[in-house]
Amino acid sequence: MTGAAPELSAPATSRGAPHPDSPALFRYTVALADDALISAQRMGEWIASAPQLEEDVALGNIALDLLGQARSLLTYAGQVEESGRDEDALAYFRNEREFLNVQLVERSYDQPDGQRGGDFAVAMARLLMLSTYQMELYSWLRTSTDETLSAIAAKAVKEVDYHRDHATMWVLRLGDGTEESHVRMQAGLDAEWPYHRELFEGAHVDPALLEAGVAVDPGLLREPWDARVSQVLAQATLGIPDVRRAVTGGRRGVHTEQMGYLLAEMQHLARSHPGATW
Amino acid sequence: MTGAAPELSAPATSRGAPHPDSPALFRYTVALADDALISAQRMGEWIASAPQLEEDVALGNIALDLLGQARSLLTYAGQVEESGRDEDALAYFRNEREFLNVQLVERSYDQPDGQRGGDFAVAMARLLMLSTYQMELYSWLRTSTDETLSAIAAKAVKEVDYHRDHATMWVLRLGDGTEESHVRMQAGLDAEWPYHRELFEGAHVDPALLEAGVAVDPGLLREPWDARVSQVLAQATLGIPDVRRAVTGGRRGVHTEQMGYLLAEMQHLARSHPGATW
Repeated sequence: MTGAAPELSAPATSRGAPHPDSPALFRYTVALADDALISAQRMGEWIASAPQLEEDVALGNIALDLLGQARSLLTYAGQVEESGRDEDALAYFRNEREFLNVQLVERSYDQPDGQRGGDFAVAMARLLMLSTYQMELYSWLRTSTDETLSAIAAKAVKEVDYHRDHATMWVLRLGDGTEESHVRMQAGLDAEWPYHRELFEGAHVDPALLEAGVAVDPGLLREPWDARVSQVLAQATLGIPDVRRAVTGGRRGVHTEQMGYLLAEMQHLARSHPGATW
Repeated sequence: MTGAAPELSAPATSRGAPHPDSPALFRYTVALADDALISAQRMGEWIASAPQLEEDVALGNIALDLLGQARSLLTYAGQVEESGRDEDALAYFRNEREFLNVQLVERSYDQPDGQRGGDFAVAMARLLMLSTYQMELYSWLRTSTDETLSAIAAKAVKEVDYHRDHATMWVLRLGDGTEESHVRMQAGLDAEWPYHRELFEGAHVDPALLEAGVAVDPGLLREPWDARVSQVLAQATLGIPDVRRAVTGGRRGVHTEQMGYLLAEMQHLARSHPGATW
């Protein structure tokens, strides 16, 4: 976790290669940023609401890691696009349809029966799914021909490795714990599972970025993701949910109702005083 | 900010002095812990909702500092009392009347008109008031005859010093900023000011603790607090609110309606699965 985003050099792909299409690079970078930003907002809800104070601290730190990744990526996205918005403009003044995060990260943790406080097992299932994906993604991006993405990934990969360890620990503890905790963990996994497939969709990835070695095809991350997640679930004595329904749309700016509420909360202050000198 | 509470030695006042009345020490320690714990919960609401992403990170870190202080203090409180509850039992299984935090820290940041998102100027006015008080408190407690409180205070004083710097920076920037920001900052200050007097009340401080040099009379912190806060407000071109109404009650377990909502959110998960092996 950092107090400030790392210094970013001017946008540049390495070895003097021509810079790929700016809108394509902008779109890709924003999608990665939005996954982190929206996750951070949801994760922050756990500060002092987790089942243990120690866990509150851990989830708070994970939220701050994700916020740091989002800041770096949004700052870079702003440098790439022609109009050159800054990280705050991109976070607070885009509309819902312009957010490209997966739906996995945007939904409330609150339970379907409307009970306050959220479901911790849902949060841990989601974190396992997201962090395993981000681990594969950032591992690949360390070797991106885009030097800025490569630098951001090199830092982020260590953070999401910790997030994955943390989620794994909880999935094992709850899944292979008491009868009650097992039931809750399986239910959490079942609730999140329909959202895993969109992690491997490529609506935000222009083929030119793949050709230039800037981005990775998300479809390639699926096999290692499956292997890692299956291993954790087996060890946790959890079944892989049998889900036909696969939810997608986030990468094209299509979001759930709960995204609207989240953005209202996130953007309200900045928007209610546009142009304010904070 | 820390990943874990510092190791605490067994409860001990220094120099072999007889340990003061346990319930009194418990009560004092819990009041300090609750100020930090409830503040952390409210502060966490700003993750990704502040007017700048950089500020989200800063407020998230402040929330984690406060959570760390709360953990250390609650752990110690549990060691002091006979039944020996742990930090989680004290955080999640006490009832509202058993919380001894000041009302200053428990109220929602949301605006009276019900607008979502909270008022950042209120948050900064509150943080200035709280952190200035905690700065004086922990500075004194560094020399407490209770070695554990002294050790906790020595660490905490550096953290709250940073919190005060941060709040001061914002109060100056908004107060001495644009006409609009000045109006908002003054309004935030006016909203919080009636709650400052209870910081200097001693309902949670047994006279025996004062005699033993374990605790400080909160009334003694008022003069240095007044001096410091007045200086910041003058520099920020803000007026000291003329408030006759002084709110108290928190130190005796009397809280606002919003404390109930906060506790419901904070305690829901732990309470809905009592005895769960998390």
